[in-house]
Amino acid sequence: MKRRVLKFGGTSVASIDKIKAIAEYLKDRTARDEQLVVVVSAMGKTTDELLKTVSSITKTPKEQDLAVLLTTGEQQTISYLSIMLNDLDVAAKPLTGFQAGIETVGHHLKSKISKINTDYFEQLFEIHDVLIVAGFQGFNTDGEITTLGRGGSDTTAVALAAALESPCEIYTDVAGVYSTDPRIYPEARRLEEVSYEEMMEMSALGAGVLVTRSVEIAKNYNIPIYLGKTLSDERGTWVMARTEMLEKKAVTGVALDKDMIHVTLTYPQYDTVLLDNTFMYLEQEEINVDMISQITNNDGLQLSFTMKDTEETQIQKIFSKLQEVYPDLYVKIEDRFVKVSVIGSGMRDMTGVASKVFRTLIEANVPFYQVTTSEISISYVVDADNGEHAARLLCGRFDL
Amino acid sequence: MKRRVLKFGGTSVASIDKIKAIAEYLKDRTARDEQLVVVVSAMGKTTDELLKTVSSITKTPKEQDLAVLLTTGEQQTISYLSIMLNDLDVAAKPLTGFQAGIETVGHHLKSKISKINTDYFEQLFEIHDVLIVAGFQGFNTDGEITTLGRGGSDTTAVALAAALESPCEIYTDVAGVYSTDPRIYPEARRLEEVSYEEMMEMSALGAGVLVTRSVEIAKNYNIPIYLGKTLSDERGTWVMARTEMLEKKAVTGVALDKDMIHVTLTYPQYDTVLLDNTFMYLEQEEINVDMISQITNNDGLQLSFTMKDTEETQIQKIFSKLQEVYPDLYVKIEDRFVKVSVIGSGMRDMTGVASKVFRTLIEANVPFYQVTTSEISISYVVDADNGEHAARLLCGRFDL
Repeated sequence: MKRRVLKFGGTSVASIDKIKAIAEYLKDRTARDEQLVVVVSAMGKTTDELLKTVSSITKTPKEQDLAVLLTTGEQQTISYLSIMLNDLDVAAKPLTGFQAGIETVGHHLKSKISKINTDYFEQLFEIHDVLIVAGFQGFNTDGEITTLGRGGSDTTAVALAAALESPCEIYTDVAGVYSTDPRIYPEARRLEEVSYEEMMEMSALGAGVLVTRSVEIAKNYNIPIYLGKTLSDERGTWVMARTEMLEKKAVTGVALDKDMIHVTLTYPQYDTVLLDNTFMYLEQEEINVDMISQITNNDGLQLSFTMKDTEETQIQKIFSKLQEVYPDLYVKIEDRFVKVSVIGSGMRDMTGVASKVFRTLIEANVPFYQVTTSEISISYVVDADNGEHAARLLCGRFDL
Repeated sequence: MKRRVLKFGGTSVASIDKIKAIAEYLKDRTARDEQLVVVVSAMGKTTDELLKTVSSITKTPKEQDLAVLLTTGEQQTISYLSIMLNDLDVAAKPLTGFQAGIETVGHHLKSKISKINTDYFEQLFEIHDVLIVAGFQGFNTDGEITTLGRGGSDTTAVALAAALESPCEIYTDVAGVYSTDPRIYPEARRLEEVSYEEMMEMSALGAGVLVTRSVEIAKNYNIPIYLGKTLSDERGTWVMARTEMLEKKAVTGVALDKDMIHVTLTYPQYDTVLLDNTFMYLEQEEINVDMISQITNNDGLQLSFTMKDTEETQIQKIFSKLQEVYPDLYVKIEDRFVKVSVIGSGMRDMTGVASKVFRTLIEANVPFYQVTTSEISISYVVDADNGEHAARLLCGRFDL
């Protein structure tokens, strides 16, 4: 009996009819002698609706309370899917994050999975063919309900796959990973395979298919991930170790990160305590800052960094706190930049990628403000207006 | 510091604004040096809406799955209330049935509370003033989510009050208990006090204020219950031990149970196995049957009993099962009868109540079909058309 972990996202379970279609599909899969762990998100706009109600109450809900509320969304999906499967005579059981033993650490709304107890799964598989797990949620050592933050249901699925030593299939409304966003560059190709490293760069750089943490877990436990389109025969993309891959190419993708904000702090004098406090608060709130630059001159201190715009509320909170102590602290938050990245694990062995990128942008008169590189990627901060144009030029240049 | 358990029902928390008003009220209570456990139901029609969605999937959902679904309703209410209280600077914490340690036994949708671990409450009260508990839900020894069935949130509240040795205040949209339904008999008086026994008879007989199990628990642990109107100064009713009560009257109330169905089984021969199976199935499904009568004559077997109409689906299921084995079994379900009851713990010491009731009904030409008595009540089955009339006559007769 083969075991598989499958994950269906919010748009795949947006209505009762869509969940029904998935139930039928899962029945077919079990008929092929498979035992399934199925991770589901909240139905379509459920989470947004709950958040909308909360915003009518307060702008600053307590995170613990919010986690308790948001997890009801996935809990409803697991119930509906289980009702349907049992009605189709497939022995199914719904499990909340707590019941699935998904232990987490960290902030209530941005927790990380620390442990999964699979003994319970083995026991349940003795009399069930499908175990349905609420994605995005877990519990901490205080017994409190937590959520995993952005891309949390994917992380639930990959972590369960790692714990159960099974492949992981993640289904969304797009078939797999493209060399770049097809809406920007219509000639973009679907990739049959990408390495964990390439996928991680793509996620971290904003390609938006799979969050970095999910890929990290898959890489650490060497779990192959299939990214496919829900209920479609269209071929998707396998994310796996590079050694198992057929294709080798210097550049496999171009990513464009628009959901980025640029924060600049200005303070009339150089103050190491202020700098220290800033980074301490950022760490406490578990905010990932990207490209950091710091300038000290006669006008005092200037610190800039980029970060995800989803964390704007928390960053505002941090700076309000800092401004109570430092009334002269001036904070500017802008979204006029985007980040364009060229990714390919082949960059390691092949030279000349960086110079080709530079030349392409210079020839096209696209100014760039900051450049960062990793072993398998190069990223450029450019004006928001130039982002898509730059991405298209680079796709053409590397024949993607 | 005084400790109190408060419970607010579905209509009291039907909207965000209503929950806000309750949050403000609770803040005032904590300002009076009270520590509160607040039990809440699902918001207004939430449960009905979830059930409606389920009925679009199947008529026979698995009970385990349904329990997982329904409990999301209360989980949302506890989150909203906690968000509001914390926003008002009241240290509050939401707890699901599981987190509140409400252990249950029995069917998933009709569980009974077997144990509550209050150690956790003591620990939480060290840093919180209000603990908000999702009513109606718990978990069984298999770690599965369960619900408590009809009136479950009241039972949660009373059981918590018993475990914490605190009085219990139950708030609804009606102020307390009336001698009879004021819609039937406008002269009905609100009772200031009723004994546990009287309240139990009223609940069991369909007065519909508090389910019997809740009163039973309160009686066993001698917990006084206050039945009041949400956010109103109007005086309610105390339910307490008779020894503490001031008022002594033979008859304190008249109850009318309309939510009753009358089931008749007819089978061409006398068959003890059939009878045995019928009662075994009823017990397995935890269906409470009331007045039972059985006739055996030349035409075979006839068994009649009355029961709550809320359990009609289950009873249909049982009889479908029986009819597979006994194709000649004929089942008739009617709702043409109602039950009128006269209740009063004073009946124990005062005589003549039964004869007064009989005479009243006979003089008014109200035929009755079955009579049952307990130590403190007498119940009559009458035609549905005569129910309200009979109740009014009896209220007048006993000066209620």
